[in-house]
Amino acid sequence: MNKQSGVLSGVRVLDLTRVLAGPYCGMMLADFGADVIKIELPGKGDDSRANAPQINGESAYFMNLNRNKRGMTLNLKSEEGRQIFLDLVRDSDVVLENYRPGVMEKLGLGYEDLRKVNPAIIYGAVSGFGHTGPYSKRAGYDIIGQAMSGLMSTTGWPDTPPTRTGTAIADVVGGMSCAIGVLAAYVNRLKTGVGEKVDIALVDSMVSSLEIINIIYLNTGRIPTRIGNRYEAIYPYDSFQARDGYVIIACGNDKLYGLLKHVLQISALEDEKFKSNLDRVAHHAELKEIIECWTRDLDIDTIVTLLLDAGIPSAPINTIDRVTQDPHIAGAREMFVDIEHPVAGKITMTGNQVKFTHNKATIRMPAPTLGQHNYEVLKERLNYSDEKIEQLIRSGIL
Amino acid sequence: MNKQSGVLSGVRVLDLTRVLAGPYCGMMLADFGADVIKIELPGKGDDSRANAPQINGESAYFMNLNRNKRGMTLNLKSEEGRQIFLDLVRDSDVVLENYRPGVMEKLGLGYEDLRKVNPAIIYGAVSGFGHTGPYSKRAGYDIIGQAMSGLMSTTGWPDTPPTRTGTAIADVVGGMSCAIGVLAAYVNRLKTGVGEKVDIALVDSMVSSLEIINIIYLNTGRIPTRIGNRYEAIYPYDSFQARDGYVIIACGNDKLYGLLKHVLQISALEDEKFKSNLDRVAHHAELKEIIECWTRDLDIDTIVTLLLDAGIPSAPINTIDRVTQDPHIAGAREMFVDIEHPVAGKITMTGNQVKFTHNKATIRMPAPTLGQHNYEVLKERLNYSDEKIEQLIRSGIL
Repeated sequence: MNKQSGVLSGVRVLDLTRVLAGPYCGMMLADFGADVIKIELPGKGDDSRANAPQINGESAYFMNLNRNKRGMTLNLKSEEGRQIFLDLVRDSDVVLENYRPGVMEKLGLGYEDLRKVNPAIIYGAVSGFGHTGPYSKRAGYDIIGQAMSGLMSTTGWPDTPPTRTGTAIADVVGGMSCAIGVLAAYVNRLKTGVGEKVDIALVDSMVSSLEIINIIYLNTGRIPTRIGNRYEAIYPYDSFQARDGYVIIACGNDKLYGLLKHVLQISALEDEKFKSNLDRVAHHAELKEIIECWTRDLDIDTIVTLLLDAGIPSAPINTIDRVTQDPHIAGAREMFVDIEHPVAGKITMTGNQVKFTHNKATIRMPAPTLGQHNYEVLKERLNYSDEKIEQLIRSGIL
Repeated sequence: MNKQSGVLSGVRVLDLTRVLAGPYCGMMLADFGADVIKIELPGKGDDSRANAPQINGESAYFMNLNRNKRGMTLNLKSEEGRQIFLDLVRDSDVVLENYRPGVMEKLGLGYEDLRKVNPAIIYGAVSGFGHTGPYSKRAGYDIIGQAMSGLMSTTGWPDTPPTRTGTAIADVVGGMSCAIGVLAAYVNRLKTGVGEKVDIALVDSMVSSLEIINIIYLNTGRIPTRIGNRYEAIYPYDSFQARDGYVIIACGNDKLYGLLKHVLQISALEDEKFKSNLDRVAHHAELKEIIECWTRDLDIDTIVTLLLDAGIPSAPINTIDRVTQDPHIAGAREMFVDIEHPVAGKITMTGNQVKFTHNKATIRMPAPTLGQHNYEVLKERLNYSDEKIEQLIRSGIL
């Protein structure tokens, strides 16, 4: 275990977050070398410890999002637990939480409380709707972020209902937004000594991701809706059916369409009605049909190779098994990483997408079992004796 | 114009990026108060200046992503332009680019070149596939990131093809990942003086966002696919048809299902086959039908109010017009902001999702017109005379 490497080495984080959005933020900081201490409820822990899939009784979901973190338990509802937390805040740089707004204040651990013991603390909070405004106290889930932001209304096909994105994208984008805010605030704190509260809402985060879509409505009054995989302004730039799945062909201009005609050698593509990009957009359904006459008989990999060799942007629509075996993604870019977990054994995780040249992000430590580092953390940070820690465990504080 | 407020005030950024992923990263830094100088091709500028919608000949797409940046032009292919860029790098903190890998090296402006004039420079690069690996030189677009990462294969309905997310989510998540990497590297540089190259691929960024999905396949061998808006493990937790659109109802446990039954008062919901969550998952289609008997006759807002009042998580699936008029999102959270542009007039933009308590992110300056700050930047940074700048303009360097 090497806690001292990485661009954030030496940064001390207390991570109270659960499930996805908050833990994703803590994971980024931990992958970059910060000392992230995950603090969980004694006896129970993060709800996602129960999430499928389970390997030898350990959740792969939990293990992925909490690698590189040390783990301790602490009952924040007890006065003694609260005091221990405040003592840890005193010599920490960052606190992360994703409780419903108001919960930390009720525990006497809101930003204003933490500032009193450490004015330089960076407090990062992720919630469904944020810490201000009329919906602040509503429960916020990923699907609610996707729904209320408008994302679902623009995802899917003209004849399907609004559609959610296949991953918990509001949670992930919320967690990323929190990491951006916390790091930017920490930069300011290094220069000025002043702390900051960073308040992230899942809904706001998705609204930000929709910016081009919002901009269309806000500046023209037209409401963007669902048009499947094509784009409004260019064609052929879409998905097409192959023998064994689907491919993307992306010909955004006349030159690329010319190259495509040359590869496909189908006379119908020469028709006047496909002459300019505007023409092709107007007759997109017909053009798709013609292109699929060619793609339907060929394998994904054959099509992609033929088109890329001809200088035409193309890509497979990968299923998850293909992604995890891809020589570029899984190979060169190391987006899947094995690690040995003391209970689960060898497990495979998602790698970090931020590739540094000098101080690489690493997966150096498996996720903690519940309370695994109680002794280590309390001895190192607060100089507690074994006896004191044992007593705290017996009394249910840890 | 107040360039000196915000958590990143004093941070100097040279932004060579175009279109979406890179500009989104630069926008985050600019919203936080960094001095971001957008450098564009003389006479032409960022391709997205041509993107719809246009307002008085200015692109709303471009104006949104490039607010708070100063703008200058520079022909990097000329030796004089290259030298001016290197002179700017000498006293900058961050360089951002999203060219295809190899382009900057060919210009003599790769990370190794920039390090020679400023060893502490943070170099942030966003590309489709990253700067290493066999696909590195392939063209990378948002839809290719969505396709190759596996995201599309898990988005949509059992009877639809793989589906792209309605916004350019791979570009946005790539830009966010770059902001996270650049800020983390800058933290390290403030402590150690050492610079860093941050290499972000759209595909890697989406793979990271899919982590729970990958984890299922990697640890169980089952390939996750498209199941619409429901989730595999809980029901009713889905979208439902209302009279005027769609709503989310999210009852993840027996207690919430009990509350739902109490509100709906439909005897069929009491059936034994809906008793436990597992039962409800097994009979999800039938259960959806029954719940829609109730939702179909009511307006979105009526349903959401009734359910929230009863303690049941619920939300409208907002269309874009509803989002932009929402009292929480547009009101309290200020996710849409007006600004006066010298050519376009008053335009509305998407606000920043990172809400700081002390040093708020602000939209204080409209996007630059092409070369708007040529004089200002070159005088301030390199002490150039008016005559020298005029001569550079005449010779096409600016």
